[in-house]
Formats: sequence, structure tokens, C-alpha cells
Amino acid sequence: MPPKAFQDYYPENVAHCFGCGRLNEHGHQIKTFWEGDETVTRFTPEPYHTAIPGYVYGGMIASLIDCHCTGTAAAAMYRAEGRELDTEPAFRFVTASLHVDYLKPTPLSGELVIRGRIKEIKGRKVVVEATVYAGEVATARGEVVAVQMPESFLAA
Amino acid sequence: MPPKAFQDYYPENVAHCFGCGRLNEHGHQIKTFWEGDETVTRFTPEPYHTAIPGYVYGGMIASLIDCHCTGTAAAAMYRAEGRELDTEPAFRFVTASLHVDYLKPTPLSGELVIRGRIKEIKGRKVVVEATVYAGEVATARGEVVAVQMPESFLAA
Repeated sequence: MPPKAFQDYYPENVAHCFGCGRLNEHGHQIKTFWEGDETVTRFTPEPYHTAIPGYVYGGMIASLIDCHCTGTAAAAMYRAEGRELDTEPAFRFVTASLHVDYLKPTPLSGELVIRGRIKEIKGRKVVVEATVYAGEVATARGEVVAVQMPESFLAA
Repeated sequence: MPPKAFQDYYPENVAHCFGCGRLNEHGHQIKTFWEGDETVTRFTPEPYHTAIPGYVYGGMIASLIDCHCTGTAAAAMYRAEGRELDTEPAFRFVTASLHVDYLKPTPLSGELVIRGRIKEIKGRKVVVEATVYAGEVATARGEVVAVQMPESFLAA
């Protein structure tokens, strides 16, 4: 069995997100993992996820940063509480704000790697920074303010 | 014939963007128009463009704001020069930075309206503000710093 990603632990009723829900068959189904104190998502856009020909669509980059960071926020909160991802209550975060700086065009030529870093945890809020790499080159940098989803959304 | 949108004037070689390129058959193909001094895009997400069930995926909202604002930037630059959209040289903008504040969940229940306002034009840079409405309710607000694409990209 492959290792389980953060998103594999999302409760079923909140696992339909187009970006990261494992139950959305039309979506990107991104998978995020710890690598030390960083979080990492690897994703290969489709040929039609283009901005100008040859480069990745900025909306896709924003989407990857968004879902990478909400997943990271959940994982960070479990870690802050010293709990495993399969323990209750489940954490699921939504995005309060998203910022992306497009540093240079992102070549549409294979896998992108998104690396996240937890900047702040305060109450129900987690701030996550993420950088998108094409090969060794950082092409975009983002920041997400993620907020814990109200329990009413998590009730089945 | 329906009225032509900003994106209908993009030169063919830069009309493949997943968000707004009329030649990307897999993409969203958004269409943006002037309404007085505002710019307006109307878009209906698919049922699978979901965040948590019943609400629109935040990455989709970011994508709509992004392409709405780069289109608005181009149209604003033509207007600033007193030129029609079908005159040369063509304007096409890319995103330098994107910021989105998610004010409240956006219901996935029909058409969204994105309204843009030009905040600043300075040299090759245009700053555009956009608000996303579901019915009468503003659910997200964004700002894009758009930069005129280098002429080398526009050469066929």
C-alpha cells in the first residue's frame, strides 16, 4: 500500500474538493506529505493546463498552492496537538485568503513540486507559505491564511 | 452575432489559456465585457467545481478573478490609449500577483458575476480589483497586478 497523504484522512463528507478531494473524480486529487518540517505535494499538470503555450496556467498554480496549504494547515494542527492524522476530532481547513506571487513563467513540462512551511498557528488559524518548483527553479510563491472549518460542516 | 468579449480579440497564439483562451477546448473560456467603467464576467461553474459540497471551489474563484483581471487590464490599456480592441498592437497581460479574500462560502447554485474595477495604470502595469457575486452577495474579493506580456511572446 502506498503511504497515506493528508487528504486521505479527510472525513468523507468533506473529501469532494475539486483540488484535493479524493472523492472528486473530475478533480486534481492532490496528495500532500510531511518531509521533515516541510510539506510536499507533487503534481503533473495536463497539457491543456496552459497559460500561454508552453507554460502552466496561473489559476492551476493558485489552486495547487491553495489546497496544498489547507492540507498542510490540518496536518500542522494534528502535529501541534501531538495527534496522528487518523485520530478524532478530524481537522479540515478552509481558505480565508490566498496570495500568489508569480516569480517567473512555470514551464509545462512535467512534475511540479510544491513545498510548504508553517508560518503561524494561532487559535483556529494557520498561516502557511508555499513555493512552487519546476525542477530546481522556484516559479511561484504563495501564502494562505487557513481557518478551521466549523464543526457544523464536518457533521455527517 | 453575439457581442465580442475582450478575450475574443486575443491574438491566436496567446488565446490558449485554460481560464480565458477561446481556443482551449478543455478550459473555462470566460468572456469579459465593459459595463460603463466596470468590467463584467458571468460564469456558471460545473457541479464538480466544488469545495465542500454545495459551495464553489476556491481555486475556481481564484482562477476567475485572475483571468477576469488580466482581460480587464488589456481592455483598460486600449481604453487609456483611446484605441479599439481590434487595433494593433495587441495588448495581452500576465499575472504578477494575485490576492483573494474569501469573504464567505460561494454557493454552487448557478451563475457567478465577477465585477472588475481598474485601480491603477502605470507604465506596463495595471492593477485591477474584482469582486465575485453569487446573486446579490459578494462572496470573494480579489486584486491582481497584471503586467503587459513581452512582445516576444506575442510574435507569431
